[in-house]
Amino acid sequence: MRKNLKLGLFGYGTVGQGLYDVLQKTPGIQAEIKRICIKDPEKKRTLPASYFTLHAADLLNDPEINVVVELIDDAEAAYDLVTAAMRKGKAVVTANKKMVAEHLEELYRLQQIYGVPLLYEGAVCASIPILRNLEEYYDNDLLTAVEGIFNGSTNYILTKVFDEGVSFDDALQQAQENGFAETDPSLDLEGWDPKYKLSIILAHAFGVFVPPDQIFHSGIEKLSDFDVKIAKEKGCKIKLVANCKKIGDTVYGWVMPQFVKPDSDLFRVNNEYNAVILEGAFSERQFMVGKGAGGYPTGSAVLSDISALTYDYRYEYKKLNQESRVESSNSGMLEVYVRYSKNNTIEFALFESIAEKFESAETGYVVGRIALAEIRKLCAGQPEINIVQVGPLEGLNSLDKLELAAEYT
Amino acid sequence: MRKNLKLGLFGYGTVGQGLYDVLQKTPGIQAEIKRICIKDPEKKRTLPASYFTLHAADLLNDPEINVVVELIDDAEAAYDLVTAAMRKGKAVVTANKKMVAEHLEELYRLQQIYGVPLLYEGAVCASIPILRNLEEYYDNDLLTAVEGIFNGSTNYILTKVFDEGVSFDDALQQAQENGFAETDPSLDLEGWDPKYKLSIILAHAFGVFVPPDQIFHSGIEKLSDFDVKIAKEKGCKIKLVANCKKIGDTVYGWVMPQFVKPDSDLFRVNNEYNAVILEGAFSERQFMVGKGAGGYPTGSAVLSDISALTYDYRYEYKKLNQESRVESSNSGMLEVYVRYSKNNTIEFALFESIAEKFESAETGYVVGRIALAEIRKLCAGQPEINIVQVGPLEGLNSLDKLELAAEYT
Repeated sequence: MRKNLKLGLFGYGTVGQGLYDVLQKTPGIQAEIKRICIKDPEKKRTLPASYFTLHAADLLNDPEINVVVELIDDAEAAYDLVTAAMRKGKAVVTANKKMVAEHLEELYRLQQIYGVPLLYEGAVCASIPILRNLEEYYDNDLLTAVEGIFNGSTNYILTKVFDEGVSFDDALQQAQENGFAETDPSLDLEGWDPKYKLSIILAHAFGVFVPPDQIFHSGIEKLSDFDVKIAKEKGCKIKLVANCKKIGDTVYGWVMPQFVKPDSDLFRVNNEYNAVILEGAFSERQFMVGKGAGGYPTGSAVLSDISALTYDYRYEYKKLNQESRVESSNSGMLEVYVRYSKNNTIEFALFESIAEKFESAETGYVVGRIALAEIRKLCAGQPEINIVQVGPLEGLNSLDKLELAAEYT
Repeated sequence: MRKNLKLGLFGYGTVGQGLYDVLQKTPGIQAEIKRICIKDPEKKRTLPASYFTLHAADLLNDPEINVVVELIDDAEAAYDLVTAAMRKGKAVVTANKKMVAEHLEELYRLQQIYGVPLLYEGAVCASIPILRNLEEYYDNDLLTAVEGIFNGSTNYILTKVFDEGVSFDDALQQAQENGFAETDPSLDLEGWDPKYKLSIILAHAFGVFVPPDQIFHSGIEKLSDFDVKIAKEKGCKIKLVANCKKIGDTVYGWVMPQFVKPDSDLFRVNNEYNAVILEGAFSERQFMVGKGAGGYPTGSAVLSDISALTYDYRYEYKKLNQESRVESSNSGMLEVYVRYSKNNTIEFALFESIAEKFESAETGYVVGRIALAEIRKLCAGQPEINIVQVGPLEGLNSLDKLELAAEYT
């Protein structure tokens, strides 16, 4: 039987209001918003004042509220609220990817200890039901890889740059004006946001907790006209791609811009759309696309979690038990393009091998094979270096190697 | 806690053997095949003879077997076996789309009466987890449309014809040689197979039982060089597309070849791949692609159902209760291209309006708006007519209207 849910909301921004709208138009769900905790009492609200409170305790101490829905920006405050609610035996739904990624192992333990579910589908690729699918459907499949476009803001910007010839700066401004990028866009541009999502996916796909700070990431904030030119001459776009691959009992995860050829599924995933590609031994290749940002897509994912709670659904984290020997590593070897300026000193010895080198008065690049851990050293303290993935991780052939730039060698 | 499952298999063909392989390599699943019922005792088998029996009763009457997995071709025999197993209180997994589609309302009732689950993810688009997603994830979304390529054989043939310039007959032969088409390919070519899948999807997406014989279908068996030429000149491919759309409380379902433009998601879904597009009010547009045929993709979907049974999963058919007022109808109006030969008599009065007409000594075509029910009348007893969908169902704009053939008018 479906449970009747009384919701306590933290935050009433875009997603909170999206959730309210979706809930109003979904009569089948036995859930109603009882109280909403907000920060700013001055802001004009679309609901009667009686809904709102400034005090978290009004929600946490209300025995009638059995589900806390956390939709605030501040990851630290969100962590305090979510764990407090769980300790009080309340089920929790959150869309806060940073908070979940940074505390996932502890949040997993709290779920066991307090016997309460914590669901966060809205935190990963909004409308794409990737977590539920990894939990429920790919349980028994021998999953080998998950990769995709996990960030709508950067994909919007890259689409403008590559499909419409807009400059990077103008594209960023358009993304901000259209609500696809934050006022401070660095979490998106630098690749932090897709990395948080990847960290969460790693737990559900391969049963391994890898905190974000152990995952290599590189963003698009240093993308230059030179890089765009190189990509376009090769008929490629650059997409910001999050990757994880399992080889034997080792899992490799990283976020990096990537040259994407027209025959790739990711080539035509544009604007604020996200995409996930799953590779399994038996189900083979799966490809899922959906909107990765916005109040309604995210609100819809949050409501889907709420709906699941009416059936006592919880993540089983089955892979954690099934594949306990799996470990993550940054020793994986990639072929990358590293573009630098005359201000940089490139430690070429970090490459296992170098396929191409180019230098002019202003700019140089090198294409070579290098381990994820070494790329980190290569970039340390050198802000003008830009990195784009060229070839696949060794041992896998899901990406074809690109024949880059004969005329630049 | 996971249940320990003892499986009784009916049939040991491609999917049965695929399932056996997948199960062997999936140590996490607490399920083992105890006995396999086969028809042909002479056929060479890859397992010891002790696994096999010719008698259904050896499985049905074995109290240790708690899950029956039905993987035989014959839909009538499958129906007898599946219902007998359910009446004996055994959970059942089947991949038989024809059997499920033709008996779905009864199979739904039997599940309630005998308190046993019946799962059939493998029956619909093999490796794409569409049923589980419709059940679990789109539960609360205001779903408006499901469409896609549900048949791998015809998609393989159409890919050869449109991407490689192979003749229809040669493409069919290649499909048969590669195991993507049956020896008798009419179920696929004429559109029966995707119609069975559509009938099943209608129940899970919109909560309405529509038997296959109430759904309009048209296949690709009459595709001519003239039709291919028309499509190519417009930069289109033809794909066999299954559709269902909900407008108000009415659901329209049909299977029809369709002109697909390069900017459609379906344009690049090729060979034996299947694709599903979901349109919801809040999650907006979702797109899922995966292999729709073959022993491993189907075996993987079947095993996913088996895995779900270890957790006592069952379809809830939530939409059946949520949206009881929904009814299906064939009054929906489509824009279609109807190509005919000089042997045909076209009843032009059946069209609501006609946009284009073309006639030569051998061939003619008309493009016009016509209700699904009237297309059926138009085609009755006229085997040489071929139909391709041009424009969207009235009231929806998920497909753009094609500007067809100025030079042919």
